[in-house]
Amino acid sequence: MIINILKKNCALKLLTIIIIVFSSCQKENKPKTKIERTQEYLKKDFTQYVNPFIGTSNFGTTNPGPIAVRGMASVSPFNVSGNQNLPLEKDNRWLSTPYIHENTFLTGFSHVNLSGVGCPELGVITAMPTTGDIQTDYLTYGSTYSNEISEVGYYSNILDKYNIIVETTATTRVGVSMYSFPKGTANILLNLGLGLTNEQGGRIKVVSPTEIEGTRSVGSFCYYKPEEAYPVYFVAKFSVPADEFGVWEKPNTYQGVEAEWMKEYNGKTRIKKGFTKEVTGDSIGGYMRYHFDTPTKVEMKIGISYVSIKNARENLEKETLKKGFKQIRKETRTEWNQYLSKIEVEGGKKEDKIKFYTALYHTGIHPNTLNDINGEYPKMRTRETLNTEGTRYTVFSLWDTYRNLHQLMSLVYPKQQSDMVKSMLQIYDETGWLPKWELNATETTTMVGDPAGIIIADTYLKGIKDFDIEKAYEAMLKSADQLIDNPLRPGIKDYIEKGYLTTKTIHSGSVSTTQEYNITDFAISKLAQELGKEKDYQRFLDRSVSYRKLFDEEFNLLRPKNNDGSWLSPYNPETGANFVKNLGFIEGNAWQYTFMVSHDVEGLKDLMGGEKLFEQQLQKVFDNKQYDMANEPDIAYPFLFNYVKGKEWKTQKTVNDLLETYYKNTPDGLPGNDDTGTMSAWAIFSMMGIYPITPAKPIYTFCAPKFEKITIHLNKEYYKNETLVITSNTTNKEKFIESIKINNENLDSFFISHEQLINSKKLSFYLK
Amino acid sequence: MIINILKKNCALKLLTIIIIVFSSCQKENKPKTKIERTQEYLKKDFTQYVNPFIGTSNFGTTNPGPIAVRGMASVSPFNVSGNQNLPLEKDNRWLSTPYIHENTFLTGFSHVNLSGVGCPELGVITAMPTTGDIQTDYLTYGSTYSNEISEVGYYSNILDKYNIIVETTATTRVGVSMYSFPKGTANILLNLGLGLTNEQGGRIKVVSPTEIEGTRSVGSFCYYKPEEAYPVYFVAKFSVPADEFGVWEKPNTYQGVEAEWMKEYNGKTRIKKGFTKEVTGDSIGGYMRYHFDTPTKVEMKIGISYVSIKNARENLEKETLKKGFKQIRKETRTEWNQYLSKIEVEGGKKEDKIKFYTALYHTGIHPNTLNDINGEYPKMRTRETLNTEGTRYTVFSLWDTYRNLHQLMSLVYPKQQSDMVKSMLQIYDETGWLPKWELNATETTTMVGDPAGIIIADTYLKGIKDFDIEKAYEAMLKSADQLIDNPLRPGIKDYIEKGYLTTKTIHSGSVSTTQEYNITDFAISKLAQELGKEKDYQRFLDRSVSYRKLFDEEFNLLRPKNNDGSWLSPYNPETGANFVKNLGFIEGNAWQYTFMVSHDVEGLKDLMGGEKLFEQQLQKVFDNKQYDMANEPDIAYPFLFNYVKGKEWKTQKTVNDLLETYYKNTPDGLPGNDDTGTMSAWAIFSMMGIYPITPAKPIYTFCAPKFEKITIHLNKEYYKNETLVITSNTTNKEKFIESIKINNENLDSFFISHEQLINSKKLSFYLK
Repeated sequence: MIINILKKNCALKLLTIIIIVFSSCQKENKPKTKIERTQEYLKKDFTQYVNPFIGTSNFGTTNPGPIAVRGMASVSPFNVSGNQNLPLEKDNRWLSTPYIHENTFLTGFSHVNLSGVGCPELGVITAMPTTGDIQTDYLTYGSTYSNEISEVGYYSNILDKYNIIVETTATTRVGVSMYSFPKGTANILLNLGLGLTNEQGGRIKVVSPTEIEGTRSVGSFCYYKPEEAYPVYFVAKFSVPADEFGVWEKPNTYQGVEAEWMKEYNGKTRIKKGFTKEVTGDSIGGYMRYHFDTPTKVEMKIGISYVSIKNARENLEKETLKKGFKQIRKETRTEWNQYLSKIEVEGGKKEDKIKFYTALYHTGIHPNTLNDINGEYPKMRTRETLNTEGTRYTVFSLWDTYRNLHQLMSLVYPKQQSDMVKSMLQIYDETGWLPKWELNATETTTMVGDPAGIIIADTYLKGIKDFDIEKAYEAMLKSADQLIDNPLRPGIKDYIEKGYLTTKTIHSGSVSTTQEYNITDFAISKLAQELGKEKDYQRFLDRSVSYRKLFDEEFNLLRPKNNDGSWLSPYNPETGANFVKNLGFIEGNAWQYTFMVSHDVEGLKDLMGGEKLFEQQLQKVFDNKQYDMANEPDIAYPFLFNYVKGKEWKTQKTVNDLLETYYKNTPDGLPGNDDTGTMSAWAIFSMMGIYPITPAKPIYTFCAPKFEKITIHLNKEYYKNETLVITSNTTNKEKFIESIKINNENLDSFFISHEQLINSKKLSFYLK
Repeated sequence: MIINILKKNCALKLLTIIIIVFSSCQKENKPKTKIERTQEYLKKDFTQYVNPFIGTSNFGTTNPGPIAVRGMASVSPFNVSGNQNLPLEKDNRWLSTPYIHENTFLTGFSHVNLSGVGCPELGVITAMPTTGDIQTDYLTYGSTYSNEISEVGYYSNILDKYNIIVETTATTRVGVSMYSFPKGTANILLNLGLGLTNEQGGRIKVVSPTEIEGTRSVGSFCYYKPEEAYPVYFVAKFSVPADEFGVWEKPNTYQGVEAEWMKEYNGKTRIKKGFTKEVTGDSIGGYMRYHFDTPTKVEMKIGISYVSIKNARENLEKETLKKGFKQIRKETRTEWNQYLSKIEVEGGKKEDKIKFYTALYHTGIHPNTLNDINGEYPKMRTRETLNTEGTRYTVFSLWDTYRNLHQLMSLVYPKQQSDMVKSMLQIYDETGWLPKWELNATETTTMVGDPAGIIIADTYLKGIKDFDIEKAYEAMLKSADQLIDNPLRPGIKDYIEKGYLTTKTIHSGSVSTTQEYNITDFAISKLAQELGKEKDYQRFLDRSVSYRKLFDEEFNLLRPKNNDGSWLSPYNPETGANFVKNLGFIEGNAWQYTFMVSHDVEGLKDLMGGEKLFEQQLQKVFDNKQYDMANEPDIAYPFLFNYVKGKEWKTQKTVNDLLETYYKNTPDGLPGNDDTGTMSAWAIFSMMGIYPITPAKPIYTFCAPKFEKITIHLNKEYYKNETLVITSNTTNKEKFIESIKINNENLDSFFISHEQLINSKKLSFYLK
């Protein structure tokens, strides 16, 4: 996968490897100090196991472009525009990624991108190196490409049409490109007209022969909230002063009398050579132009900000001013290596290592940084400039991530998780409401439920408490109790009065939305218990199982109810699979949702007529191909067999099968949208043998690990132990868990509390 | 015309008049000092004779909005949009003014405007006060209006729909408005979507509850040079902090699959309340919103710049920060009074005084200031920021103004004329070419000919020499001699080789363009003579009469020739009147152009077969209604009778008739487009009894003055005398010139040199 076409690079790499091997051999002869031992893992290169092409096909919607850990900027190859890319062309279908592995026609490199999402957004500030005449239409200047390389923090290809070698890397807020031009006329185009987003408009200005600045409008994610569209600011700096420069604009085509007077210029692109003032418009761009006597490299850095051009420039300067491409690439890789090294896996298959570290890499992309290097970030909606102390994170796809991603953060990256919670509370301060699906300081209100509180409770209950829990609790109660004008819980009045939403309450998803509210109410009850708010504890615990009223014994499944309390009829519980819109369930059907009550498995068992019928019904999901690995509602199902004594092997087998079937070291190696790391987090937990089965309940349940030894380096600011080690005697998938030991004592359960786990040093699996 | 509806104002005015009268009575009892005597004229209020409504109908294309002397900003009522204004609606016909007197539907006040031009341009940054809900569509929020007042530096009306009193004034770079709102909800809209210009696009941002900033694209004057479209920057400050604010944008309407996903928001205006980041786009705006318990006044100042928002803010602050509406209005009026007082007229009809001072007012609008208060201005085309020492003037409609406006400037405002020439030389420095029709640092290349050199020669030959004449001469020779890629003189190769352009050389105007080149060549020859460049003098003098080859004895008129030297046939010399496009003449026909050779009247007489036939042919122009007072080519014709001994009375009579017929104290009181003051300058000279008959030849010819005493206050930096006084024993139009005295000595000619005139103190007409 990681192809290297640059001979020079190849030699350098080999030399580096020799040096590393040689120096590590040298060191092994000396006794190690404690610091050497504890920090040793940092010297290992975990980035070698990351294959950024995983998820770039099969609607994984990841991209192979370089990004720093939780970076604001990234540099993705952009190959989703133009009929050359049909059928996967952005204007001809719903398409939510700037890059698709099987496409072939590249029209630039976009500098702000989302990873693993299901709606088109960002994918703007596209740069394209070309040769020859200035062409401003991407259909004309686009090119096929070859010799792709993607590594952590690095992407390269060759543009066939121009014989230009493109190399890209990134810091947190700066995308960095190195273009190796052949001799002759060379151009670097910045096309603000092209983008994945549905928004339009921007401005661009050549500041000097080495600098271009501008803005681009983005927003209306999932075609929602167009009124919250907002600008992204950029400053581009070029290492070689342009011999010529300019901007272009393509105006609208006029109709009527004015069209006659405009004649041939009506709607025609205008290239403004040497122009130094801004142009504004929907279809605009700028270019730098060179005349090279010999093959020449030009480095381009594009600093990003959501606050101002000034901040974009400051971000660029502070992060990259004195650094060249190679150093930036190296530092970003080092930063990723630090992130990845928090979990060290040994033994097992190399393919599994690649699947594991690529998944872990995917969890380090979103949520990502919103604030500039000076701490400034835009306030929600109005976008006034505010200041943050810690990182203000953004891209909170919480309907996805409340299920496992934040649990992974709490375990492995508690400081980041703490800042994520603080960011949610900043959003509450700014808007009066916790986030639902926040994106760059806009609330997209995509998906359903009230998920932020689940995450907050889960985090707090895992002992991460360095945030204002009283404020958080107040915020959680607000969305749980406010009956009118409640943007987080539409239909709350019916939910409180009847215990559920009806087919009349909302257009779609009355059952699943009830379940989501139940889960949040369960989280509130757990947090209330912890905070000693006994009344709330009981009140919300009662509310958390109201889904039971929607259980229909006829199908042994959940079923929508009408406003008068009658069942929705006729009823086919399979309706809703494959994202078909239906009255009862959002992005799913009754099979995919009924078991999404892991906080009340015993209750569900009772409803179904006992454990045996529960297990049979759960097995049917898999046997009848109702299980959808590509979406979140049933994501925890495989672990529910652990609730049936003697059937725990089914969890192990099912998880194993799913890991093999849906997770692969290939571009189509994700089940579907990565959902900002949720699908990846599922694989990470599953491969470690532990899964946070019930959001807001600090427990894990077990499956068979995919590695012989897993060392989680714990953050000492939050946890007393330095490491948690998980071992397994085998990774043979034909073997099943025989016994589990915690700190060498037998554990007589397929569940363990978070507290016990992180306060033990070792979890050992024995498979037979 | 100058209606006053504000009672309070009325009382104030009366009081002021009483004080002035009283104090002047007081003073008359004392003997006057010399300084008192010489400066006395400044105390007189000449602005009272200006009626800014003159020219706002009949395609005069002036507007009644306030502007400072040569101001960059102005505040014009904008009433040319919307079908309510049909047939004079800007999108339904060629329309080049933001205001038309007979229209009734007002959609705002535009803050950059051109006066007296023939193509739509500027008319942007439109502000509109409203009440009630925020409406963003001008068709909805527009209103009829009543109680219009227009004075120098002041315009007011009442918006019928809202009962809002609008008052406006301006400094050089700032438009100032005072809105008197009734109690209740009030809004101030800034609509960047609306404009007279054909360009589109801009950005807007609410900086604080008292400030909005933004840009608006303008350009492609006369539908030319769209590639030179450029931004105008503004900062708006509000005296009362808004209770609410916001921006809006109306996106394009999508077609195809995306339209389905966008559903009802597709193409719909989005109001973004409280939004503090910029929006960019074609149809955008911003608003300030208030809730007033009592009727409240809000003052809005809009600073303008063609360099940057920063400069727009600096312009605003330096020109108006510590000044209220009343003081600004007073200072602008004082500034205009100083401008107008340079020519003091006494005796004669009051209507003539109004015609005269309004005309003089019109000459003080363009050329206008381009540079910011800090001296910065945009370089031609590329718009890099440059710095000027003197004023960098702009709006050089030179095909019009070379005929008389700059001659008026040289006589009465030589410092301004000198700076105008320097501005032309700056343009030469920046582009390699003198201007043709320069507008805000773009060369529109509208109209024909090579007029800048005529003005430069005329200025220099009148003794205004404080500019780099060698550079100017070099620039003049360049356009006169460069045979290829010559933007000023297309067709120059044929012109040099054949002496004229042919019907093949250019699409239209082969004869008239030949004449224009002849006039410039005459100017070069005169300047060469002055500079002692004898060879050039003779060479260009020879070239200056090459039009003679196009004289056809068959018609006793000029006639286009084909490439082979044959006459264009068939030929109707009347074709081309009323702006009908034709092969021979630009905006005219053979009658209107044949006599446009005032530098070679004797030559033309010879061609026509002598003085008598010349006079008969000239008379036919008037008798056969071929004379067009509304355009420039035949503008000097009435004065040509002075070249025929004994027929000078015809000049006096014709000029008198034209002044009465075409110049009136009514909105339709200009013959047509004012042509940035050229039509007004014609009236000024004509009413003073002197006319600069031959551009670049420093002479004046005479007609009967319309006043008994005219005192021109000369600039002592350029002229040795303090005043030039022109007197006439009568202004009775039935009387004709009997004799003319210069310094009490009889003048035996109907012509006088500039030198003799300005070095004499008195020119006296005796009519009988």
